[in-house]
Amino acid sequence: MKIAAQQPAASPAEPQPGDIPVEVFRQAMHRVADMIADYLSNVAEYPVVPRISPGDVRRALPPSGPAAAEPLDAILDDYQRLIEPNTTHWNHPGFMAYFANTGSAPGIMGEALAAALNVNAMLWRTGPAPTELEGLTCDWLRQWMGLPAEFKGHINDTASIGSLLALGAARARLRDLQIRQKGMAGRPELPALRVYASEHAHSSIDKACLTLGVGLENLRKIPADQAYRMDPAALAAAIAEDKAAGRRPMAVVATVGTTSTTSVDPVPAIAELCRREQVWLHVDAAYAGVAAICPELRAQMPGLEQADSLVTNPHKWLFVPVDCSVLFVRDEHALKEAFSLVPEYLRTSESRVTNLMDLGVQLGRRFRALKMWMVFRAFGLEGLQARIRGHCGLAREFAAWVEAEPGFELCAPIPFSTVCFRATPPMPPAAQNDFNERLLAAANSDGSFFLSHTKLGERLVLRLCVGNLRTSRELLRTAWRVLREKCAELRG
Amino acid sequence: MKIAAQQPAASPAEPQPGDIPVEVFRQAMHRVADMIADYLSNVAEYPVVPRISPGDVRRALPPSGPAAAEPLDAILDDYQRLIEPNTTHWNHPGFMAYFANTGSAPGIMGEALAAALNVNAMLWRTGPAPTELEGLTCDWLRQWMGLPAEFKGHINDTASIGSLLALGAARARLRDLQIRQKGMAGRPELPALRVYASEHAHSSIDKACLTLGVGLENLRKIPADQAYRMDPAALAAAIAEDKAAGRRPMAVVATVGTTSTTSVDPVPAIAELCRREQVWLHVDAAYAGVAAICPELRAQMPGLEQADSLVTNPHKWLFVPVDCSVLFVRDEHALKEAFSLVPEYLRTSESRVTNLMDLGVQLGRRFRALKMWMVFRAFGLEGLQARIRGHCGLAREFAAWVEAEPGFELCAPIPFSTVCFRATPPMPPAAQNDFNERLLAAANSDGSFFLSHTKLGERLVLRLCVGNLRTSRELLRTAWRVLREKCAELRG
Repeated sequence: MKIAAQQPAASPAEPQPGDIPVEVFRQAMHRVADMIADYLSNVAEYPVVPRISPGDVRRALPPSGPAAAEPLDAILDDYQRLIEPNTTHWNHPGFMAYFANTGSAPGIMGEALAAALNVNAMLWRTGPAPTELEGLTCDWLRQWMGLPAEFKGHINDTASIGSLLALGAARARLRDLQIRQKGMAGRPELPALRVYASEHAHSSIDKACLTLGVGLENLRKIPADQAYRMDPAALAAAIAEDKAAGRRPMAVVATVGTTSTTSVDPVPAIAELCRREQVWLHVDAAYAGVAAICPELRAQMPGLEQADSLVTNPHKWLFVPVDCSVLFVRDEHALKEAFSLVPEYLRTSESRVTNLMDLGVQLGRRFRALKMWMVFRAFGLEGLQARIRGHCGLAREFAAWVEAEPGFELCAPIPFSTVCFRATPPMPPAAQNDFNERLLAAANSDGSFFLSHTKLGERLVLRLCVGNLRTSRELLRTAWRVLREKCAELRG
Repeated sequence: MKIAAQQPAASPAEPQPGDIPVEVFRQAMHRVADMIADYLSNVAEYPVVPRISPGDVRRALPPSGPAAAEPLDAILDDYQRLIEPNTTHWNHPGFMAYFANTGSAPGIMGEALAAALNVNAMLWRTGPAPTELEGLTCDWLRQWMGLPAEFKGHINDTASIGSLLALGAARARLRDLQIRQKGMAGRPELPALRVYASEHAHSSIDKACLTLGVGLENLRKIPADQAYRMDPAALAAAIAEDKAAGRRPMAVVATVGTTSTTSVDPVPAIAELCRREQVWLHVDAAYAGVAAICPELRAQMPGLEQADSLVTNPHKWLFVPVDCSVLFVRDEHALKEAFSLVPEYLRTSESRVTNLMDLGVQLGRRFRALKMWMVFRAFGLEGLQARIRGHCGLAREFAAWVEAEPGFELCAPIPFSTVCFRATPPMPPAAQNDFNERLLAAANSDGSFFLSHTKLGERLVLRLCVGNLRTSRELLRTAWRVLREKCAELRG
């Protein structure tokens, strides 16, 4: 077959333009190194949340991209002028909202080097060291967390994806249903599938269920006890009810460190039930799981070793820059059964290697293990433990102040580094919620710290999470002083 | 409620250990800057694919993580000794396998800065500048590609996820089926859902279909013509047949730049059919879409503006480090209908803002727009166009050499920068395939370049893709010389 190239001709003698000249880059990258070091030194001078309105940043930038190349220094100038001041500073010592985290120094170095390598480790062959380092560093974490040797870990961008993959594997394990091949719609013989999770489970479980076609209604939210932990008796009853009605239990999701209160579902009792019912047990330990590297905290989350899958995020509380979420599975083959597909162009001659593309939805894989390796080594296990313990200690101190203060109350136990609390002015419940919402806004307007909120039952409560390496006792004192002052002002 | 903290007490007077001291980091980061600049200068000295065996890297590293902290310089030494030499070098001028890409200098700077900010832009409030820069830079790309103003773009990690989201939106648009809420199993009233794509569509479409519960069997692979383009008449017949059988067409995926040959499905004819049948049209333009910034190449992919959704990867052929895949949708509300879920703790007071978490599965969002912004500005539209044109020109030159050489043949048209070709020794077809597979291995063993393969019908063919900014005409000449020499040797 003779095939004329279809394109308009260009002069073959033209030199090909390439990347930015290396020495120009070298100089700019040294400036970047200083910009980052300066940022980490001075980030506390920014308000945590910038005082801007939607659209402000976009209006300050050209509506269309530039026709001609611009100098790297001009771009970095604009970064310093328009971007850095106008983001919310997750690396700020005062960031104590949601789950506070840290993009630590060694992690930043790892990300820069990974971008330079620009590896796509979809196959062992396309990224041997990245593939093996991912397996190895996940195994270091496994050992540190006290998980069994059969647990194999790999890295995804988010726990949202980790939980989606785990539930996908759970669905594939219902082999008789042949869902991978035949799908779920137009099959009158299929039973409804059910997933069970605490009423405090994270919204990513809802998203996984809607994505997989299980449907939001088939995610049964199991009631929790007064300490916000899933009630295993209610779970057992729900499963029995569903089975009696001809529905098929697909998976149970136990949460270890719920988003609202960091409560810990009773995994041993849940696991026993799952074994008896032969239902996949996924543990969502996105925040708290990594704290299992401290034996005394691991003791607060018994049963992790009984999971079929477990997701935990080194980008949350192990100081690795986002994104870095580890999914452990007891039987890696179950993941492959669910997701592996090898088209001809990706067939390689290496046998018995892990090809990361076989473990999930995404073909493309960044070299995320590099930053995790650098963080693990730069701090060491003891250093990581000391920092997590320090955060728990600070949270405990803050909780003690709240507990001792008339007009405030703690709203949940504090197993880790997150405190739920609120003001209790003498007013009806709805007005109390409104009061706390105004208190949160007033306190956050100080700018030196940033808290978030949640709802527990009908109560709106404030949340303070210690997870940033720069958060100090002094700053907690400031936050507590501002909260009390604003509370007094609002009470008038 | 009085709640005693559950943790073992620690001395409150202990100082909290923090991040690596900034000045220690500053020095190490300057070393990283030089390491990266040196790597970009010298990467061609490595073989593209390292000459190691599975397990070599892992055996060279400790099986357990370190107890104590290690100095940053020791970690960087190990990186240089064990990691850098043992990865496949996607940033190598000789990387011409799969879809060659580039982690360009400005993109590396952007990744380093993004890691320092460590933003999770799940909400506008948690990342105002990141959220707005993502909207803006995607709009710059939209304008450059000549797409209509109603197309809204956002960034995902991979086209695998972009296509999954697009098909999820297509499923949600079948509103009468209420799949988000009720799921797909255990509902005898639901018809089977069908997705249509060319037999040359990417495996990510298969993965999306199995993930969404559509089922691999319900992804109908439509035959292609001799130039590997989907046959619209066959598509129309398949849809008619399915409808007659009571199945429900959910989406058509047209590929613009297939993985094997970069062929372009006839989008205008497919779009017309989709409009008539009211079926969602997703365009997978992961590789070729970005080339639409060159008007003469855009002319080779008419109809993009008629898509309901379109995915294209700046991390493939627009010199942005992995990961950076843009999903454009005509009706952003359709994505939100499919995926938005706002739990209480993420409710914010800003109205009418984009919260990126509403557009997909993943809650966590890295600041990927920063690197894209830096690349777009550092090269400018004209610079990006010149580089893409240069790559197409090089591919055309290589193709001309193949075409002129007895004993070799081109195997597909060359609309962009990817050439499919093979040796044609006088032997039976199966032996020819085996010959080409051995030729590929022999040529790649040279180390100065790396090609991949695919299958077209029964023929195994070699693929050469020009997409790295460092690839030179000289290197192509080397590859061609080595290929001919190895071919002669193998023919004996």
